[in-house]
Amino acid sequence: MSGRLVFEHATPAQRVLFGAGMAAAHLAEEVRGRDVLAVVTARSAAVARHLLGDVPVVAWFDEVAEHVPVATAARARAAAVGAELLVAVGGGSAIGVAKAVALTTGLPIVAVPTTYAGSEATDVWGVTEGGVKRTGTDSRVLPGTVIYDPELTLSLPVGLSVASGLNALAHGVETLWGPRADPINAALAVEGIRLLGEGLPEVVRDPAGLRGREQVLCGAHLAAAAFASAGTGLHHRICHVLGGRFGLPHAPTHAAVLPHVLAFNAPAAPKAAGRVVAALRPGVTGSQAGDAVAALAGLYARLDAPRALRDLGLAEDDLEEAARLALAAVPPSNPRGVGPADMLRLLRAAWAGDAPQADETPRVGDAPQG
Amino acid sequence: MSGRLVFEHATPAQRVLFGAGMAAAHLAEEVRGRDVLAVVTARSAAVARHLLGDVPVVAWFDEVAEHVPVATAARARAAAVGAELLVAVGGGSAIGVAKAVALTTGLPIVAVPTTYAGSEATDVWGVTEGGVKRTGTDSRVLPGTVIYDPELTLSLPVGLSVASGLNALAHGVETLWGPRADPINAALAVEGIRLLGEGLPEVVRDPAGLRGREQVLCGAHLAAAAFASAGTGLHHRICHVLGGRFGLPHAPTHAAVLPHVLAFNAPAAPKAAGRVVAALRPGVTGSQAGDAVAALAGLYARLDAPRALRDLGLAEDDLEEAARLALAAVPPSNPRGVGPADMLRLLRAAWAGDAPQADETPRVGDAPQG
Repeated sequence: MSGRLVFEHATPAQRVLFGAGMAAAHLAEEVRGRDVLAVVTARSAAVARHLLGDVPVVAWFDEVAEHVPVATAARARAAAVGAELLVAVGGGSAIGVAKAVALTTGLPIVAVPTTYAGSEATDVWGVTEGGVKRTGTDSRVLPGTVIYDPELTLSLPVGLSVASGLNALAHGVETLWGPRADPINAALAVEGIRLLGEGLPEVVRDPAGLRGREQVLCGAHLAAAAFASAGTGLHHRICHVLGGRFGLPHAPTHAAVLPHVLAFNAPAAPKAAGRVVAALRPGVTGSQAGDAVAALAGLYARLDAPRALRDLGLAEDDLEEAARLALAAVPPSNPRGVGPADMLRLLRAAWAGDAPQADETPRVGDAPQG
Repeated sequence: MSGRLVFEHATPAQRVLFGAGMAAAHLAEEVRGRDVLAVVTARSAAVARHLLGDVPVVAWFDEVAEHVPVATAARARAAAVGAELLVAVGGGSAIGVAKAVALTTGLPIVAVPTTYAGSEATDVWGVTEGGVKRTGTDSRVLPGTVIYDPELTLSLPVGLSVASGLNALAHGVETLWGPRADPINAALAVEGIRLLGEGLPEVVRDPAGLRGREQVLCGAHLAAAAFASAGTGLHHRICHVLGGRFGLPHAPTHAAVLPHVLAFNAPAAPKAAGRVVAALRPGVTGSQAGDAVAALAGLYARLDAPRALRDLGLAEDDLEEAARLALAAVPPSNPRGVGPADMLRLLRAAWAGDAPQADETPRVGDAPQG
């Protein structure tokens, strides 16, 4: 508490139009006669055609693939010739392709997300070439308008909803110790965590109901906007290795790893831990890292959440390589130092799906954060 | 809880540079050789000259007056000829004059606030002519960069700090039932309330210390940004009448009125009340409007806050006219209807400085808000 409050925070401009059943009307309002390239996924194509019924679409691009292969980006850019506006309907992959087009053409994006991935709230782009994903940030790729319609998420199966929602939760939690963490992005993150913690159990209880879907979609937006501002921390670096090198599925991997990174970091980030507790268990003020870990474990138990990397395709034999690669990616801003044994222990626990335990014994040399 | 979540939220772009003792360096970085018109108050002129020591200032404008008289705006615009950038150093009045210049010239503003008024975080401008204040919103008047330096607030006397800080708190509280209240501006408001509730007692305890000043300045930013997004509610309409028609001082008037508007609205806005409690008394979950009123009263008691409009220059004989004018200004979005007797009772209690009591008996026809 003795450190001074010093930060630089750049809030980008973005419009959010939120309402169940309102996507088509909101889209018509945003497009206003401009010629559109529609970027959709196979899963979202039918919905997109319905939503864009009255809109002047000059081309449809539906060859969307995960991680935006460079050839896909090139074809999408060619399809965009003559368009004045990109409308992306789908999850992170559709929005990712639209971002790749915006990056080189400067065309504005209207995003209509159908998952909780949160790409629509960030200025991060990524393109994959030869198995290597280049990523960057550019203000041109941030969608100027996002249209959230909770009805579009009703068809997302419960298991995918939980994994996608916990991926969103990881955006919120990691914001609290991100390299550019500040009171502004923390405010958004905490409210995102609160909405996700309230909404996800409701989605599991009543997947066809709008109430939980609204909370989760709104929480996912807040968490992603916060995360884009605060930057990538330990959790996302680890998951990037697991996805990039070992091909593990994005959202469930984030879900499985989060409790273990929280258990590791929380003892050195008591303020972040306290805010996780307050957001997930309103009325409780946690002072121990264990409280934050327990609050998250309580939520996971209610969601039947993905817990074990071994169930997601990681072989036990890969743990050492994964730990080595992840160790090299640890951000210097992490609230505590990470040694080789720490990383291996963390990954092994996530691999086995063990109940995470807060490691309350930071060693000498750890950088406390608070 | 049965209503659907529907909102439109426009986040404007703004950079915030926050750090004690860093204003001069941040200013130099922002100005980068551009010719500056410096807009300052009598009170901030010396500080501004120090901060702008190395910056190419083409003109100084220090005829700043409250509420931006139209003649002042005209002279400031004339002084701005040849400038590429407006740098406003001071409270709401200095920033208000810079906004009046930006409105007609399109010149960008860098704001360096020295109070907790929050004008720097909003796109609201106002100019007064013939005793009538015209106000409006325009994206051109929102400062592109705000430089917060808590050291610049150390000289603000405790009494002014408390009044200015409670005016900021009113921005946060009113956001929760504002006409465009949504989960995004609520997130910012709640964190603003929390920081103000924590920081203001610390400023009173140690006015020369930076810790409380940092929290209050940061909280004031969050609350003002939230308020600009959510729009004006009952509290600000009442205070606008008291300031405009009866000349009451801005910040202490807001401080004195807030508890009474909260007491009136809280029973019809249980969610807002609960968030006030959670922000001011972490670890407590209030379910009664009385809890929110008590939480705010507890803060006021620690601050020796302004409480009675009669101490601020309002005559008892003016109460009926004030109530009549304020009644005509009640926003339709208010969580409960306001009758003539309600308004007079509210104003009389604020005039006398009575302890506010939550009115737990909303009548038929009140619009409940969740």
